[in-house]
Amino acid sequence: MVFINISCFFLKKKKKKNINKMHGDEKMSNLPLTPLGRIIKSGGAERVSEDAKVALSEFLEDISQDLTKLALENAEEQGRKTLKAQDIEVAYKKLF
Amino acid sequence: MVFINISCFFLKKKKKKNINKMHGDEKMSNLPLTPLGRIIKSGGAERVSEDAKVALSEFLEDISQDLTKLALENAEEQGRKTLKAQDIEVAYKKLF
Repeated sequence: MVFINISCFFLKKKKKKNINKMHGDEKMSNLPLTPLGRIIKSGGAERVSEDAKVALSEFLEDISQDLTKLALENAEEQGRKTLKAQDIEVAYKKLF
Repeated sequence: MVFINISCFFLKKKKKKNINKMHGDEKMSNLPLTPLGRIIKSGGAERVSEDAKVALSEFLEDISQDLTKLALENAEEQGRKTLKAQDIEVAYKKLF
């Protein structure tokens, strides 16, 4: 039984290392492309190229940054350091 | 040694089941919240509530649907069934 525990301990250690490596990867900071592909297809597209997903992810990141800046202004006005849904909603109404 | 392999086999089976359960979950069709939290924080927010991430994901999905519709029009005009980056770019310029 001791051997079994040791074996699984090493398995867990190995997986943890891989996760840390993924978080250090630059791609992890962007939006993942698979859910974006699903959203595009649900919008009516039969086929979607990879570069279309990349282009969409870049635009969505830009929009998110702009929304965050406006949302932060609202949170600061309310005397909060935590960004809440209401801040995002106010920012969305201001931006669009 | 036989016992060690059996133990890890069961561990793997259990993890696989959890992954399948996640794919059947309704939340998997939306944008994942963890990368959105990272984008909001990179925009300057110190703390972000979960509902702020959900609100942002909903807005981004709406924007993606609108962009997709305009992008599809452009692809159709070009006689293509595959949505490409250039279609997303044309749609973005039309929408914003």
